[in-house]
Amino acid sequence: MALDPVGPESLDALLLQLERLPGIGPRSAARLAHHLLRVPEVEALALADAIRTVRERIQPCSLCRAPSESAPCPTCAAPARDRSLLLVVEAPGDLNAVEATGAYRGLYFVLGARLSPLEGVDAQALGLDELSRRAAHAEVAEVVIATNPDLEGDGTALAIVEALRGIGASGEREAPRITRFARGLPTGGQIEHQNASAIADAFEGRRPGV
Amino acid sequence: MALDPVGPESLDALLLQLERLPGIGPRSAARLAHHLLRVPEVEALALADAIRTVRERIQPCSLCRAPSESAPCPTCAAPARDRSLLLVVEAPGDLNAVEATGAYRGLYFVLGARLSPLEGVDAQALGLDELSRRAAHAEVAEVVIATNPDLEGDGTALAIVEALRGIGASGEREAPRITRFARGLPTGGQIEHQNASAIADAFEGRRPGV
Repeated sequence: MALDPVGPESLDALLLQLERLPGIGPRSAARLAHHLLRVPEVEALALADAIRTVRERIQPCSLCRAPSESAPCPTCAAPARDRSLLLVVEAPGDLNAVEATGAYRGLYFVLGARLSPLEGVDAQALGLDELSRRAAHAEVAEVVIATNPDLEGDGTALAIVEALRGIGASGEREAPRITRFARGLPTGGQIEHQNASAIADAFEGRRPGV
Repeated sequence: MALDPVGPESLDALLLQLERLPGIGPRSAARLAHHLLRVPEVEALALADAIRTVRERIQPCSLCRAPSESAPCPTCAAPARDRSLLLVVEAPGDLNAVEATGAYRGLYFVLGARLSPLEGVDAQALGLDELSRRAAHAEVAEVVIATNPDLEGDGTALAIVEALRGIGASGEREAPRITRFARGLPTGGQIEHQNASAIADAFEGRRPGV
C-alpha cells in the first residue's frame, strides 16, 4: 500500500543483509545502503564482485590456516622460511602484524578463535589436534605461543600447552620447546599510562643489565 | 615475496572496496572482510547479490526522487494521495519518518542533499529547478518545507523559498502557500534537556490556549 512506510523490496533485502554484518546496526545499514544507491553503479558493483571473488578464491591455507588463494599459502610454501619455528596466533590479523615486523622468519598456525567454553569454543574448535599434528613433525624445534596478553589469550595458551604435552613422550623425538611472547612494557609507551597488570608483569619479568 | 605482509590479492581488493564505504576505516574493513570469509558462503553471496539487485532495480522516482523499483513510485502513483500538498525533505530517511506517522497524505520531493556551497552543493545540485517545475503545477496549493531544524536545514529552506518565488508571478496561477514544519518542544521531551535554541523557538512560537 502507498501509505506503508516500508521501502522498495530490494532495498529492504539489502538492509537485512547489511544488518547481519558485525558492528552494523539499523542506522549504519541505512547509511551504507543509501551510499550504495548514490555512488556510480560501477563502484557498488565492485564491492559486490569483491565479496564474490574473495569467497571463490580464498580458502584457509592447508598448513597454517591463514586465508590464502593458494594451497599451501605463499608463506608456508616459501623455501626461505625457518621450518623449526611454529608461531601460534589467534587470528590472521595477528599473523599480519608479526609479519610486518620482519623479525620472524618461521612458520605459523592460526587458531581462528580463542578459548571460550561458555561460547562453545573448545580445544576442538581451536583446531588444537591439527596444531598438535603439525608440531609433532620432527623439524619443529620450538612452538611460540603468541595469543593475546589477556584472560582469554592466557586460557588459550594453557590449552595449547596441554594439547602439545604428548609430543615426544614416546621417545620417537625430543619434545619441542614451548615459548610465549614476552610480557612487559611496550616500547614507546609510558609507564604512567600502563595498566597495573602490565607494570606488574614488567617487574616480574625484569632482566639483569640494561 | 613470502615475507611481504600483504594478504591475498582478492582479500586486499575486498578491503579496498570496504574502506570506500562511509564510516568504515581500515580496522572495520578488516573485521568485515574476515566476517565475510568466515560465514557460510551463501550468506556472503547474499550480500553481494543484494547490492547487485538494488542497483539493478532501484532508480530515483521520476517525480519525488525517492529510491523506487517502479516509475513513478507507489506513493506518487497512489490515487488516494492529496496532490495539492508537496512536502520537501532532505533525504529518503526523512520521507520514511514522515510516512511512518500516518499524519501526512500528500506527495513528496526528496532533495537528496542539503545546501552546502563550500562542499559544492548549490541550488543546482539540490534539484531546485525540478522542485520548482513540480510546484508550478496548478494542483499544488501548498509546499511544506521539512528540512532539518538546524543551520544547513535553515539555509536549504531559504534556497527553496527563493527558487519558488517566481511561481504565480505572471498571473497564470496563484502562488502556492509555502510553509515549514513547526519548531518547538518535542512531544515526550523534557524542557530541562532541550537546547537553548529549541526553548527560544518554543517561546517565540507560543500559541494562545493549551
